[in-house]
Amino acid sequence: MSQYVFGVDIGGTTVKLGLFDTEGNLLDKWEIPTRTEEEGSHILPDVADSIKSKISEKQIAIEDIAGAGVGAPGPIDGEGVVHKAVNLGWGTLSIKNTLEDLIHLPVMAGNDANVAALGEMWKGGGQGSRNLILVTLGTGVGGGIIIDGKILTGSTGAGGEIGHIHVQDGETETCGCGNRGCLEQYSSATGITRLANKRLAESDKQSVLRQGEVSAKTVFDAVKEKDELALEVAEEFGKYLGNALAVIATVVNPEAIVIGGGVSKAGEILLDYIKPYYEKNVFQGSRDVKFALATLGNDAGIYGAAKLVMDLKK
Amino acid sequence: MSQYVFGVDIGGTTVKLGLFDTEGNLLDKWEIPTRTEEEGSHILPDVADSIKSKISEKQIAIEDIAGAGVGAPGPIDGEGVVHKAVNLGWGTLSIKNTLEDLIHLPVMAGNDANVAALGEMWKGGGQGSRNLILVTLGTGVGGGIIIDGKILTGSTGAGGEIGHIHVQDGETETCGCGNRGCLEQYSSATGITRLANKRLAESDKQSVLRQGEVSAKTVFDAVKEKDELALEVAEEFGKYLGNALAVIATVVNPEAIVIGGGVSKAGEILLDYIKPYYEKNVFQGSRDVKFALATLGNDAGIYGAAKLVMDLKK
Repeated sequence: MSQYVFGVDIGGTTVKLGLFDTEGNLLDKWEIPTRTEEEGSHILPDVADSIKSKISEKQIAIEDIAGAGVGAPGPIDGEGVVHKAVNLGWGTLSIKNTLEDLIHLPVMAGNDANVAALGEMWKGGGQGSRNLILVTLGTGVGGGIIIDGKILTGSTGAGGEIGHIHVQDGETETCGCGNRGCLEQYSSATGITRLANKRLAESDKQSVLRQGEVSAKTVFDAVKEKDELALEVAEEFGKYLGNALAVIATVVNPEAIVIGGGVSKAGEILLDYIKPYYEKNVFQGSRDVKFALATLGNDAGIYGAAKLVMDLKK
Repeated sequence: MSQYVFGVDIGGTTVKLGLFDTEGNLLDKWEIPTRTEEEGSHILPDVADSIKSKISEKQIAIEDIAGAGVGAPGPIDGEGVVHKAVNLGWGTLSIKNTLEDLIHLPVMAGNDANVAALGEMWKGGGQGSRNLILVTLGTGVGGGIIIDGKILTGSTGAGGEIGHIHVQDGETETCGCGNRGCLEQYSSATGITRLANKRLAESDKQSVLRQGEVSAKTVFDAVKEKDELALEVAEEFGKYLGNALAVIATVVNPEAIVIGGGVSKAGEILLDYIKPYYEKNVFQGSRDVKFALATLGNDAGIYGAAKLVMDLKK
């Protein structure tokens, strides 16, 4: 019976690693730099070395280790093969096979945002649920969908791309993905700032937002002070996100919807703007859902990665 | 090794039954009336009697039967429990346990629309795919979603309610589900008729549609004759459905999208109106999808129901 599992979250600048017991307690966590040079060919060997060092440092027996789970940016299919991860310099690469050959332990891999959703389900804001939507509101809008305890990976690893669902016809600016009118353009930190700047430019309304640089944080700070223009921005943000979540939930029928990312630091007040639109437009059978804020922050990835391997064992 | 499996599709007026071999060949099919009186308490006993008669008629040994799968209208959870099926008179009822007690064979049950999706994946328009969206355009818009070969059931059995995703703010008419602006209000046979009648009333444009009663069929017949007003209706229909499928596919990342139901009898021309909107607004990673028309017609339910039991065996 294994007692330990590693969770690895590979980002564009650092790799986060965690050592967990099989109950999901985080025993140790650390970081190493992500060496993206030479087509990212050092990344997995570096991860392997770091894991081996930790095993020897902690004097853990190999047979007590369930394996290592990995989250990485980019589409990763159900076989643990990534199909182009631009930030890491990777083309098509089997993370699973490559890392297994290096550490001689079972490896599982998934898209970082999807893996974070699994982490929030296991030990975060969605604990106790098996069907969950995680939406992370950061520079972009990311997220993942868990169906019956498993990541919705999709046919080519592009499942759960919540940030790029089309929510607005007639948008003139282009999203990072190349389309126009993606959720990310309205409900990310960048999107909220854009909505605020647009309103500031189009109206003469007094607003505390006119005193300095606008950000998602200053918008929601102003919302708490009942600044009229900020309230309008929050309403617009909530309409896009609430409606989008209603559509996803009508398809997915989740128990929980978890909101994470930098914007979620605004707190419960966010939900006040999302929920009315959600409840108005979701199919009745999916109306009773638990809304929660993410609780694992930047550790969601290592938790979810560890859980990938735990599930493998069953 | 089992050689036979039964597929049962319970509708509001008739129950369709099929006997399959485990390769998925339909060996025999027949129907019995659905007796909805007395809270539908006769339905499953009638099904059991019909299955038993067929077993004895065909002189099949019990040990050669894998079991019976059942599709029925209403939300049915992963344990085979239906939570209110208004058309059948049922409240909460374990289809699985009730029918197993009657026929002494393994039983699986799922929502009829979801089960039809599984059928189209197994032997219909989506053959060869493991991630699929089925949308059936009939009086309403139904459908189901298959993820990695399995029905997306959701936490309470309300998964895959494609017809009730919110696609239009400001709609003044109410959908059957109680919401306003559901896909079903624009892309079902009824919805297409509504769109056409609205345009006919609002414009003086000449149209063959002014010569008699309007239906989805007359609209698409007129589209084939390049009737201008009918072309506008088809465009609007395609916009709603194409955009909605783009949103669902951005989340689900399917290999195939299958269009069924009465409206799909219009043929490939339907896809010409749906695909441009789909391709414009779907996330790039999910753009390459196979669009197909459903091929099993009213038999999709019995095929899918049989497949539910086939999957149980693995």
